[in-house]
Amino acid sequence: MRQIIITILLVTYWGTADFGQAAEQEEKAFTIKKIHEEALTNQMAYKWLYYLSEKIGGRLAGSPESIAAVEFTHQILDTLNTTKVWNQPCEVNYWYRGDKEEVRIINNSIIGTKDLKVLALGGSGASGKDGISGEVIEVKSLEEVKLLGAKAKDKIIFYNRAFNNGHLRTFNAYGESVDQRVFGPNLAAKMGARACLVRSMTGRLDDNPHTGVTIFESMFLPIPALGVSTNDAELLSSLLKRSKVEVFVKTTCEDRGKKQSYSVIGEIRGSEKPDEIILVGGHLDSWDVGGGAHDDGAGCVHSMEVFYLLKKINYKPRRTLRCVLFMNEENGLAGGKTYADISEKAGEHHYAAIESDAGGFVPKGFSYDADTGIVRKYTPFFAGWNELLEPYDIKINKGGSGADIGPLKGQKGILFGLTPDSQRYFDFHHTEVDRISAVHPRELALGSAAMASLVYLLDQTP
Amino acid sequence: MRQIIITILLVTYWGTADFGQAAEQEEKAFTIKKIHEEALTNQMAYKWLYYLSEKIGGRLAGSPESIAAVEFTHQILDTLNTTKVWNQPCEVNYWYRGDKEEVRIINNSIIGTKDLKVLALGGSGASGKDGISGEVIEVKSLEEVKLLGAKAKDKIIFYNRAFNNGHLRTFNAYGESVDQRVFGPNLAAKMGARACLVRSMTGRLDDNPHTGVTIFESMFLPIPALGVSTNDAELLSSLLKRSKVEVFVKTTCEDRGKKQSYSVIGEIRGSEKPDEIILVGGHLDSWDVGGGAHDDGAGCVHSMEVFYLLKKINYKPRRTLRCVLFMNEENGLAGGKTYADISEKAGEHHYAAIESDAGGFVPKGFSYDADTGIVRKYTPFFAGWNELLEPYDIKINKGGSGADIGPLKGQKGILFGLTPDSQRYFDFHHTEVDRISAVHPRELALGSAAMASLVYLLDQTP
Repeated sequence: MRQIIITILLVTYWGTADFGQAAEQEEKAFTIKKIHEEALTNQMAYKWLYYLSEKIGGRLAGSPESIAAVEFTHQILDTLNTTKVWNQPCEVNYWYRGDKEEVRIINNSIIGTKDLKVLALGGSGASGKDGISGEVIEVKSLEEVKLLGAKAKDKIIFYNRAFNNGHLRTFNAYGESVDQRVFGPNLAAKMGARACLVRSMTGRLDDNPHTGVTIFESMFLPIPALGVSTNDAELLSSLLKRSKVEVFVKTTCEDRGKKQSYSVIGEIRGSEKPDEIILVGGHLDSWDVGGGAHDDGAGCVHSMEVFYLLKKINYKPRRTLRCVLFMNEENGLAGGKTYADISEKAGEHHYAAIESDAGGFVPKGFSYDADTGIVRKYTPFFAGWNELLEPYDIKINKGGSGADIGPLKGQKGILFGLTPDSQRYFDFHHTEVDRISAVHPRELALGSAAMASLVYLLDQTP
Repeated sequence: MRQIIITILLVTYWGTADFGQAAEQEEKAFTIKKIHEEALTNQMAYKWLYYLSEKIGGRLAGSPESIAAVEFTHQILDTLNTTKVWNQPCEVNYWYRGDKEEVRIINNSIIGTKDLKVLALGGSGASGKDGISGEVIEVKSLEEVKLLGAKAKDKIIFYNRAFNNGHLRTFNAYGESVDQRVFGPNLAAKMGARACLVRSMTGRLDDNPHTGVTIFESMFLPIPALGVSTNDAELLSSLLKRSKVEVFVKTTCEDRGKKQSYSVIGEIRGSEKPDEIILVGGHLDSWDVGGGAHDDGAGCVHSMEVFYLLKKINYKPRRTLRCVLFMNEENGLAGGKTYADISEKAGEHHYAAIESDAGGFVPKGFSYDADTGIVRKYTPFFAGWNELLEPYDIKINKGGSGADIGPLKGQKGILFGLTPDSQRYFDFHHTEVDRISAVHPRELALGSAAMASLVYLLDQTP
């Protein structure tokens, strides 16, 4: 008898709990639907991105354009129900491209003289006003350069290891190739090379050279270092199979030294747990060419749109929400490091942080990064979240988060990276064609909606 | 003791079964990986699509271009390990657009005279060589036209119900709006209207008019019926709020009557169960404008690429595989109906059929359509398939299949439709801009790989 009563009580209790949970899930599903409908019908992100990418344009940290972007986004955040908005100073190094760079095949026995499509890499040195000439040696890896030994001296080292297009996720191909760009020129310089060419970081064959950061160990090393379009990399390679190739290289890049810059921060103070911060962010700087539309204008407008969407659906956050537009992700990470330092000193706790820095394409999910102990705290929610996000084809998986929020890992919150579809990303990344025309308004809107949905779900946890 | 022995035996048996299953899953995973790598690195689909869309171009059933497409794809199928390739005759009705259609706002009190961006709808009548003029009445639905009664007489009826962009899947918005285009002109004609304009079937505001089929009940009804670009639909509507609007309409469309045409069929005879057919297909015809790249060149090259990929990985199918490129999906479905009729009469059994007719974008999954009893036969496999396809972000869901394979439902197999991401589809659908430039090679390749993977999994079932 007693057992029966206990059983009945338990069943009743569980039934109620289940019923309560189901009702809660239903309410959440309804809110997430509203967020998506709002984003798809009334988004602001695309308009903001148009301004950032086409009116301001490329905005390398330290440049006047980057400061214009600070001012523009600060003004927008002021309109989004924020409790306060501020510019957080950080010191950046201003690299300046100078005049249009030149690389020219000269006096070749097969094709004579021909200009190549190139872009100096960020951090590249200058050639001097008369330019530099030298014989090209093609390599596929840093190891190969080391093996060249004395032969590398006075040569133009040409890194030409192509993307492996067999990878489903193009970031994996990028990850396998980008050491050539980041570390290749430094090694070439140490081996005595006069200049360095790097095959552009894309799996597509086209005429758009890609820039991106290259790192020199000391201020004496920077030689001219340039990205070459994949079509011209193929051309160079095929010529090298049949002839000696000499190229002329001219760059007028300058290190313009330290500049004061800013990350832009908007905050909505939480009503119940103001000391627990949920951060959304992207990076405000971009390369100086193109409009930095996907990289990372999209991440900035995604993050601002989170505030816009929550305002539109009249959601009052329980925790403190911060939208942080980090400065200098591309060549220094000053914004991200400074933000984490200041936050650390203030004894803040970031309950969660979500970065969007993989483009404005259809979102496929979020990857999370946190220490195992921390993850255990959040995993009980994952099944419920995945169920709610599944109709939007959004999944939560283990993976990376974002370069700017990485330094917050010590605060023992969970870090997320938005993972949009990556098929088209490296068509545009760090090029002249990373412009608003490469962004689809609905795809962009769905990224904002995915981020707003996750922020909402995080804020709803007990 | 006996119990212990039985337990041990059972554990051993289950252990082996589990082990065997795991090994089988692993082998399948490996094959699906190979299929994807092959598609991403060595695809032919994009090259074939370039030819179909740019060299042949729009290929409405009955047109010379449609016959060129039959010849081209027949030749390609001949190279793909097929046992036989044949053209299956079907009778189509050839509608011909004629000269560039004209719609012009005339003598308007606000903007004077202005040409609108329009395309005659497939099935539209001709205006006569002097054109037609009339006053425009805007409506949002077929019901509204009925309510107009005698007021509709001699007017130009303008259907202007916009897409609901709040839908996540754009096909849902299309489904809610397309009655205006398919049935609106017929109703307008029956009410005595002189011509009919229909807002283009897209959620985007742009200058590209969309064509598509419109159906008239009898040969006496066809009035001029045209799709208007969404920007011009907005303009018309805003003018109508402030003034009377009269337009001039001129079309020279012709019904050119019955023509012999063909679906193209390639077959690889199955080694073990040749009487069970697995079909992959798309439709070879397209509208006459643009290149029919997404609709449905993509579906044709996806299907041909299934054969190509299975050949590349040296897969010998156990069941008979058919690649069917159906003629006349856009305005009559003659190919699909004829194919099913002939198959029925021959007593064939289609074990499964997969159609790709929703564009060449990143695949998100397959929807299946079959009667409940039939589905029960296949569902035991779904969990294993979903597990194998999950790394490629492919899910199997209940839903529709495809117009061309629909008539095969009676054969009690399972019908699938490939469901690519739909965000950009209606930017291009039935327009001048549905060209190769709107297709991304990697996105296209992933569609082929998804189809080849499902064919492989279907073929592996006992």
